[in-house]
Amino acid sequence: MKRLVSLFLAGICTSAMAAQSPKNIIMIVGDGMGPAYPTAYRMFADDISTPQVEETVFDRHLVGMASTHPDIDTGYVTDSAAGATALSAGVKTYNGAIAVDVEKAAVGTVLELAKKQGRKTGVAVTSQINHATPAGYSAHNVSRQNYNEIADSYFDDKVDGKFVLDVMLGGGWKYFDRDDRNLIKEFQQAGYQYIDEIDKLDQAQPGKPLLGLFADTGLPWALDYASKQRLPALTKTAVSQLENDKGFFLLVEASQVDWAGHANDIAAAMWEMRDLAITLEWLEQYVENNPDTLVVLTADHSTGGMTIGANGNYNWLPSILTELEHSPLEIAKQVLPSADKVKLASTLLKFNLTDEEAQLVLKPTEQKALTTAIKQIIDARTITGWTTGGHTGVDVPVYALGMGREKFIGHSDNTDIAKQIFELLNAK
Amino acid sequence: MKRLVSLFLAGICTSAMAAQSPKNIIMIVGDGMGPAYPTAYRMFADDISTPQVEETVFDRHLVGMASTHPDIDTGYVTDSAAGATALSAGVKTYNGAIAVDVEKAAVGTVLELAKKQGRKTGVAVTSQINHATPAGYSAHNVSRQNYNEIADSYFDDKVDGKFVLDVMLGGGWKYFDRDDRNLIKEFQQAGYQYIDEIDKLDQAQPGKPLLGLFADTGLPWALDYASKQRLPALTKTAVSQLENDKGFFLLVEASQVDWAGHANDIAAAMWEMRDLAITLEWLEQYVENNPDTLVVLTADHSTGGMTIGANGNYNWLPSILTELEHSPLEIAKQVLPSADKVKLASTLLKFNLTDEEAQLVLKPTEQKALTTAIKQIIDARTITGWTTGGHTGVDVPVYALGMGREKFIGHSDNTDIAKQIFELLNAK
Ligand SMILES: [Zn+2]
Ligand SMILES: [Zn+2]
Repeated sequence: MKRLVSLFLAGICTSAMAAQSPKNIIMIVGDGMGPAYPTAYRMFADDISTPQVEETVFDRHLVGMASTHPDIDTGYVTDSAAGATALSAGVKTYNGAIAVDVEKAAVGTVLELAKKQGRKTGVAVTSQINHATPAGYSAHNVSRQNYNEIADSYFDDKVDGKFVLDVMLGGGWKYFDRDDRNLIKEFQQAGYQYIDEIDKLDQAQPGKPLLGLFADTGLPWALDYASKQRLPALTKTAVSQLENDKGFFLLVEASQVDWAGHANDIAAAMWEMRDLAITLEWLEQYVENNPDTLVVLTADHSTGGMTIGANGNYNWLPSILTELEHSPLEIAKQVLPSADKVKLASTLLKFNLTDEEAQLVLKPTEQKALTTAIKQIIDARTITGWTTGGHTGVDVPVYALGMGREKFIGHSDNTDIAKQIFELLNAK
Repeated sequence: MKRLVSLFLAGICTSAMAAQSPKNIIMIVGDGMGPAYPTAYRMFADDISTPQVEETVFDRHLVGMASTHPDIDTGYVTDSAAGATALSAGVKTYNGAIAVDVEKAAVGTVLELAKKQGRKTGVAVTSQINHATPAGYSAHNVSRQNYNEIADSYFDDKVDGKFVLDVMLGGGWKYFDRDDRNLIKEFQQAGYQYIDEIDKLDQAQPGKPLLGLFADTGLPWALDYASKQRLPALTKTAVSQLENDKGFFLLVEASQVDWAGHANDIAAAMWEMRDLAITLEWLEQYVENNPDTLVVLTADHSTGGMTIGANGNYNWLPSILTELEHSPLEIAKQVLPSADKVKLASTLLKFNLTDEEAQLVLKPTEQKALTTAIKQIIDARTITGWTTGGHTGVDVPVYALGMGREKFIGHSDNTDIAKQIFELLNAK
């Protein structure tokens, strides 16, 4: 009997909650953030003065996992373009496709639907703003490689006569300020304000559309900023610019978890995860104050085949990562021209190199090989494993908080996430 | 307003459901089953005649993920003993510990509490029954390596005057039929029936305690059985022997997912996952017919650092795995003494070896190296990556179905799973 009552109540509960449309939806993609990344971040962020491993903001909002495979003719491992199309439009497509299906026909995205409904829309990312994931929500193209076409479409393609994006924050000078076309000027002439430094974001005028570009392509690693972060600032600005009576849809991307995975760079990866964690902590507070907001976070795929422990060693030792003040790339840049490479590397890495490690640092004569050597030293000391410079097919975690979060509990396919958001947008 | 109503209903709902104690609890451990294993199994089991990738039984019951680290003085990567102690007793301990804490004091397990409450108890596993995971629920020892002591304790240690286990199914002749002690005879004299062949399990007398041992240590790979499965039979027999008015607690372990991970053997791993999937499908039906039963499935850790895709290749190709009729170990056994190794290997692998693959098969002069060569060929053809012969620290998936399943939604620590089961056992 008790069971029948609770099943009855569960039914009421679910249907009552399913009927509501959140005013604001913030979709976050942790690009490349397979399950090992938030786990490793928990260890990286662990307060070692306590016997517990502290719960992270990710842990507080985990609701399930998602499968990520693209259209089956492509195979079982997706790229970020097909992944973004699945998450934005609910459609499986080929790798490289930007919100077009396998027939190369445009497919409508949740961001576009939000725009049609009169909501404001934005993207805040650490890649160039015309990179695969933001483009997968905001453009349609047969190939992610057509960066200029995608940038042009942000200006040229309209949704019900309006620009698709009210707020664009990320990198992209290379594509928006070209010899053949200056999209920055065009956006300014069309009424957008333009900001080219993250530190000047607080000067944005409320209510006026905003283009903010802060790098030629992607932004520098979080770890190479003095503040060690930049996604929180982009996200806060985007949210405050987008807030309005009719609500908004914002796509946030921690784009460079993926890039750290491709580079097999655990130091950069953990600091990119921290950049995302701080962003999510701020959004957690935002949802607390704005309970009519939904935040969904997932990954498009995993990158690098990163493992916590490797080579038969049952441990993972992230403490050297938390001490770092520069990425391996930046350390290599500084060490390469130095008269005493081993000494400078020890200083920057904050541990004394062993003789074997010193040999690894002394050998390379160019920056890329030296960066690789430094990453190898860090991998060995932290006991980090990698199997690829590309993507892997493991299911990814799904996090949700705020209004409608219960729709994402359990296993989803990546296309289900778009379908649920379409349903929430269309709800009364 | 709508939101307040639904929050109110959600509150009623949750508290109404939290109050019930399931009659039967079946805890399943997929040893070593990190998140890549059920994902890979979905691809392995995919019906390639359809454009969809079919949902698996795991997908239908995913509720969250769990962190797996042992006591922090051990590090961040657990072994199966500390993992079992966390899952059985809710206590973090050192690697190797069998239901004892860091002070080496015994800690009570959910199985023991169930026994004290008058429920029947059992273990059904594909390792020896005194291996780390079943021992972590049923015994207390300072080291998992003390196999004889643990076996002895199954007979000697009592819970409120009763044997701790009413049903024991798995391997273990080596430990239960020794020169210095014959525990099989002792159990028989104490009223247990004994069965030594899986095919004779249907001869078990209802209501009489049961010891079933089918191998010296672990059972052969699922893939090396004619039926390609054995855990479903063990589980069905255990459930039917344990069913009674007061309910039961059963620990099921797909022990050899872990062993396949240690061996970096993707073929064995996928067939072990299938053995588990068939078991879970049967339990899904059982819960349908017995809604007062709770089934929880998780892993103690991940093994092998297995990745779906490797070496920059964005795909995974499991089709050769589904064709196999023998494990790489068994294939090596047959090929090694053969006059035409390449021909026999091609026949058993069901694809023609390339010249390069033929060289790999011709070179080894003993079985272990030949098994390794065959696994390398399979890894390259399927595009499977590995980073270790040991364990890794990634969070593992959690599945739950039946009464009380909602308690496992979201992120858990492995100790939380024991705590929730204690709470459910103690509920009215
Ligand atoms: Zn990528
Ligand atoms: Zn193991």
